[in-house]
This record gives sequence, C-alpha cells and structure tokens, in this order.
Amino acid sequence: MAVNLSRPDPARLHPVSGVRLGVAMAGVRKPNRKDVLVMRLAPKSSVAAIFTRNRFCAAPVVLARKHLKSGAGALALVVNTGNANAGTGPDGLKRAGAVCAALARHMGCRPAQVLPFSTGVIMEPLPAARIIDALPAALADEADWLSAAEAIMTTDTVPKACSTRVRLSTGEATVTGIAKGSGMIRPDMATMLAFVATDAKVAQPALRRMLAAAANQSFNCVTVDGDMSTNDAFVLAATGLGPRAASRRDLAALGGAVAEVSRHLAQAMVRDGEGATKFVTVTVEGGRTAQECRRVGYAIAHSPLVKTAFFASDPNLGRILAAIGYAGIANLDASRIDLYIDEVRVVRRGARDPRYEERQGAQAMAKAEFGIRAVLNRGRAAATLWTCDLSFDYVKINAEYRS
Amino acid sequence: MAVNLSRPDPARLHPVSGVRLGVAMAGVRKPNRKDVLVMRLAPKSSVAAIFTRNRFCAAPVVLARKHLKSGAGALALVVNTGNANAGTGPDGLKRAGAVCAALARHMGCRPAQVLPFSTGVIMEPLPAARIIDALPAALADEADWLSAAEAIMTTDTVPKACSTRVRLSTGEATVTGIAKGSGMIRPDMATMLAFVATDAKVAQPALRRMLAAAANQSFNCVTVDGDMSTNDAFVLAATGLGPRAASRRDLAALGGAVAEVSRHLAQAMVRDGEGATKFVTVTVEGGRTAQECRRVGYAIAHSPLVKTAFFASDPNLGRILAAIGYAGIANLDASRIDLYIDEVRVVRRGARDPRYEERQGAQAMAKAEFGIRAVLNRGRAAATLWTCDLSFDYVKINAEYRS
Repeated sequence: MAVNLSRPDPARLHPVSGVRLGVAMAGVRKPNRKDVLVMRLAPKSSVAAIFTRNRFCAAPVVLARKHLKSGAGALALVVNTGNANAGTGPDGLKRAGAVCAALARHMGCRPAQVLPFSTGVIMEPLPAARIIDALPAALADEADWLSAAEAIMTTDTVPKACSTRVRLSTGEATVTGIAKGSGMIRPDMATMLAFVATDAKVAQPALRRMLAAAANQSFNCVTVDGDMSTNDAFVLAATGLGPRAASRRDLAALGGAVAEVSRHLAQAMVRDGEGATKFVTVTVEGGRTAQECRRVGYAIAHSPLVKTAFFASDPNLGRILAAIGYAGIANLDASRIDLYIDEVRVVRRGARDPRYEERQGAQAMAKAEFGIRAVLNRGRAAATLWTCDLSFDYVKINAEYRS
Repeated sequence: MAVNLSRPDPARLHPVSGVRLGVAMAGVRKPNRKDVLVMRLAPKSSVAAIFTRNRFCAAPVVLARKHLKSGAGALALVVNTGNANAGTGPDGLKRAGAVCAALARHMGCRPAQVLPFSTGVIMEPLPAARIIDALPAALADEADWLSAAEAIMTTDTVPKACSTRVRLSTGEATVTGIAKGSGMIRPDMATMLAFVATDAKVAQPALRRMLAAAANQSFNCVTVDGDMSTNDAFVLAATGLGPRAASRRDLAALGGAVAEVSRHLAQAMVRDGEGATKFVTVTVEGGRTAQECRRVGYAIAHSPLVKTAFFASDPNLGRILAAIGYAGIANLDASRIDLYIDEVRVVRRGARDPRYEERQGAQAMAKAEFGIRAVLNRGRAAATLWTCDLSFDYVKINAEYRS
C-alpha cells in the first residue's frame, strides 16, 4: 500500500557507536508484539528534541521536556507503543514518571536522565506496570536499528529507518535514525516519533540548531491530513564517541547528513500515509517569503478536494487554484500565477494555458509520484512540501480504527 | 442522502413584493435543465452583498462587486449554473460583461445595474452567447421561489429555500431566500450562492449591517470540508415596496428574520453536504473571545480524523481533544477543558470523566444529528457552528466528479 517504499535493508543501517538498543514485548495493548524500545546513550551524549505544539500534549511529552530542561543529561530513551498516555491528567504524569524511575533504578542513574515517549490510543491509562516488568528484557536485548524501527510501529505498514555516513575533517561520522508515522495523520494512534543519532561529538547549542534546521527540511514539510498529534517528538542525540564536529564546515556537513536522514524518514511517513496511493511534491516559488510559500503549499496539500483529485488522477486545476486563492496571502495577484504539473504548464498568468491539453495533466497525475509547482511571481522565496492523496482507504482506516 | 432535509413546500415560500423571478434553459453545460435565473428588483431597491475572500475570485464576482460599488442601483441579478467563469482571466470579465449588457438592453437600464453570478466548472470559457440567447425566455417566465431555487442547483440533491414573515411597527414584512450549496465543499462546481430578499424598506447602511450580522450567524458558521469557493456570494435585497424598517426595534426584528432565513439556508447546505450522513452542531463555550471559540470549533469541524469518527459513530474522543489542542489558542490550559457529546460529559478537566461509559458516547453519535460541546473554562464567550461527517461518498463524489 505504501507508495514506492520498501523495508529498509538492515545491512545498510550503520550502528552508531554509543547507542545501545533493546526491545521487548510488554503486552501494552496486544500480546506478542514488540512494543517497548529502550535506547541507551553513552554518558555525556548531547541530546536535543522538538515536541508537538499541541496544547493537549501527552504526559510523556510534559515529562521528557522537563527532564531535558533539568540539564541532568539524558542517558536513556524509553518508548512504548499501544498507549499514548494523553488526555490522562495528573495520573498519566505519575505513570510516565514510574516508568522513568524504574528504568533509572536498573541503570543506576536518576529518573531525570530518562526521557519517556508513548504512542497509541488516547485517554486510556498507561499500563505502567506491564512496561516496567518488560524493562529487564529490553535491557538484556541487543537490537539493531531495524528491530528498533519495528518496535515503534503502530499502524505503519513498513518500518522506517535510514542511515548515512559523512566525512568530517576529524573523521567519518555515522547518522542513523528511525521513525514511525505519522503524527499528522493519526493523532489518536498518536504520534509521529523520530529518533536520529550520530556518533559525532557536537556541543548542545549546535545540536539544537542542527535539529531545528533538519526539522524545517523534513518533518515540518509533510502533511497527510493536517492533524497534529498530542505526542509528536523528534529527537537528535550525539554520543560524542566518534569524530568531533566543531568547525563551521564540519557542522554544516554533519547537519546536511542529519537533514538528509530526517527528510528520508519524513517522506517515508507520507509514502506510508493512511490509504496513500500517490506521493506528491508540492513546490511554491516566487513568493515574498518562505513562510507565505509554505502557507500556499499547505493550502494545496490540505484541501480535501485537491487530495481527492490526486486520488482520482483528475487534473482538476480549479481546485488547486481555489486553494491558492484562499491561502490567506495579502494582495496576492491571481493574474500573475503560473501552475505546473510536473513539467507541463497548465496555468499561465492566472488562466488556463492555451497550449495545455487535459490529457497531459491526466497523464502526469496517473503516476504514483508527481509534482505540483505553483509560481507566484511576486518574489524570490520558495518552499517544498510532500503530501499524499485522500482515498477511500483513508476513510475506511479511520472510520474502522479502534476495533 | 441529505440529513433531515426535504424539498421546501412551495405554499410556504411567500412571494416578495418587488421581486420578479424568471428561469430558462440555456444549455450552459447540459441540455434540458434550468440553468439561468433572472431576479428583477423594483427600482430603488437597496442591495448589499458579501463575496468570497478567495484571491482567485471569479470574473462575475469582480464585476458584481464593481457594479455594486458604482452606486448605479441594482435592478437585476442574473445567475447561471454549469460554468463558474473563474480562472478565465480578462476574457472571462468580457463574457460576464456581455451577459450584463444584454440583460440591460432588454430591461432598458445600464449594465452596471445588473449583478452577475456564476457557478459550475472552473477554467472553462463561459458560453455567454447561449446565456444571452436564453434571457428573453427568462424575462418572459414567471417563476416562484422554489423554481428559482431549482434553477441554481448544481450537485445539490434538494432545492434550498426558506421564507418567513415578521411584524414591524409599520406592518408585516416578508423575508424569502434561496441558496445552493455549498461553496466550502465544492469550489470546482464552484459556489455557495445565497439570495435573500425582503419587501421592507431599509436604508443601504442598515442593510449592510443586517447582512453582515446574518452572515455571522449562518453562512460563516458552516463547514463541510474547509474549502472556500472562488464564487461564493450572499446577497440581501430590500425592495422597499412593503413596510419601512427604520427604528432600532424594527431593524432588529427584520434583522432577526433575515438571520433566521439565512441560518436555515446555511444549515440546509450542510445537511446536503457531499456524502453527509450526520449533521453535527459544534458549540465552544467559556472562551475569552468569540473568535477563539470559533477557531476551536473549526479545528474540530475541519479535522478529517474527527469527521471520519462522526461517520463511524465512534466516540473517539482523543481526536476531538487533539483538534482542540492544535487550534492555536495561546495559553490554552488543557487541564480545564470539559467536553460533552449531547448531554453526556465525556471529559472533565482535560481527562476522561470517570463516570463516562463508552456506550453512552456511541449511543449519542449513532443519531443522524447530535452536538459536540467543548467548555474551555477561561472566559464567557461562545460560538456555534454546523458541520457534517466525512464519508466514503465524499471521496467517491469528489474523485468521480467531472465525468
């Protein structure tokens, strides 16, 4: 069902020195499936994280934020699927805290050095005892990154992992990450979670900037249905056991590798979007600011009418123009806009291109991947995002979920 | 298919003195269907209108706005279905102008005294000649309001019309209106159009205020899929042949009647929304401002996940809480929020109400009409909107449209 997305090859997922992975079956929601992941980090690792801006954020998000802020230094991440521990009030915080405390006891560290993450159904009490009981097994396990990617899957149909190596002036660094999709499409099975690690040594402030830059080129550029989860998190850890990245050049090189891995993971979420049959790249150019380009791009990518037209391979251009028109861009001059499907110009200066023939549009849209490019002709900024179509299966999956 | 919506009873649609209606078959897009409506207004009628804010607005919107602004005084509205005359550039303006000029010639008035409206497919040239040829037949016709409502239907399954009478200190006034749905659900078959007329005599500034107030209680409170058409228009005409509304009290009474008719028409659009199987009233209370309540309401009403849960009669409360959380309300305290489905409290202070049982929620949501009520507990403002579910048929209709 996923669009041009296959299972990652475990041989191409490089281990990251200083990261130890272990998974276990805790039976959080269903028996006999890997649903707990423990990721241990070498002492003195730098960790940065971005969390959902949803005001109804989950208990583990509140706690992970607090633990990170405490400056205690993270030594482990603990992730469970099957239950999001969101909409659970003070009791939810207590349960998330109990899991952290239990893992800290096993590891001989402080609870504030453990970051908790949860994904799954909302508004049900977290079965903390079952997770705690499974921790010894997870700590005894030696999992590879593919196994870790599998342990955080919920309704994903394909595990998501990516890895690369990058040459710095100080040596070769590894960047490997996993993700589960897709916060924006399933806030109830809540969460987009992404964990990327490198063995490079990076100071905390530089790591934070690297994370923000990567997010803006990856997870902040995708949408399936516009919903935002209560549990979304994107974590970047640098263990410091590999080469040091301190010069501007090395930081840029490492940042590029982190962004590349993140972009791959973000696109994988869209390719595996619920019911997705098309992977569409939406590019908006010629705007005054990148922000207005993003607004136009999201108006196109969120429109249910545009998305059903993608599904039907119907080059119903009026829907795209209408979406551009209601994106809320002040003084947008519709009569300057050009629109392309792949390389075919379909709209010129706000009206149908006289040379455009509908079969050209239909041909382009019949493919599993294609691009929509809107040129606003009012500035030099641009933005790109990735989305999928809205199919019968989206409705089916979301109407029938929770059985 | 429409939710609790039946064909209006023509005997209950009161004629409006000073309004003459006529319809014709011009074959704009398909033969043998009423697709042109001419609404003539008594001289010195007051007319106010609200148009789409879409920057890609259609040629007739540009022209109708210009004609209204000219102060020439509107004597006729001409409406066609089958073609939206949008995304058509300068040529589209010329064609809309030709239709106005032709009707003006027949009526012996100026083109600026004619307001044009179009609805239908986008980006195809308006067959102006066919519309012009049909004008004599429309002018010779004497249609009632039901027939007028039928003439502006596109994919509507039920004609939409409503009428009421209101006692003023100066006599009894009539308010009658028609609409076609629903701009927000089908910007390609583009347009929500609504025309409401009264025989009361109302000064232009008061009429404009009345129109704005009615819109805020009706067409601005509905959503099907969040899309905004290129052709949306809501017109209020007062012919002045009936009682005069000048005192504050009479204006309030008449405004109430206009709002009532408008609300009925707006709700009828949602009930007849594409693929709709549920009619849902979303109320948000206890906000600091009405605007923030509306934002929260729209976040709920636009969420594809919430809408598919409505379709499935699945009280998947996490989805509603998540939507409230990402509505973008600064400092929203999730731990103060209560949530109700009809009279059942499902969330108390941000967490599941301990006394709530899921079968209660499922029972309420199994009905064709129910209410979702969110109480933010941070102020005294409130807002109400109306929406429908997202069903298989929505995808089917919008994927298969344009055959």
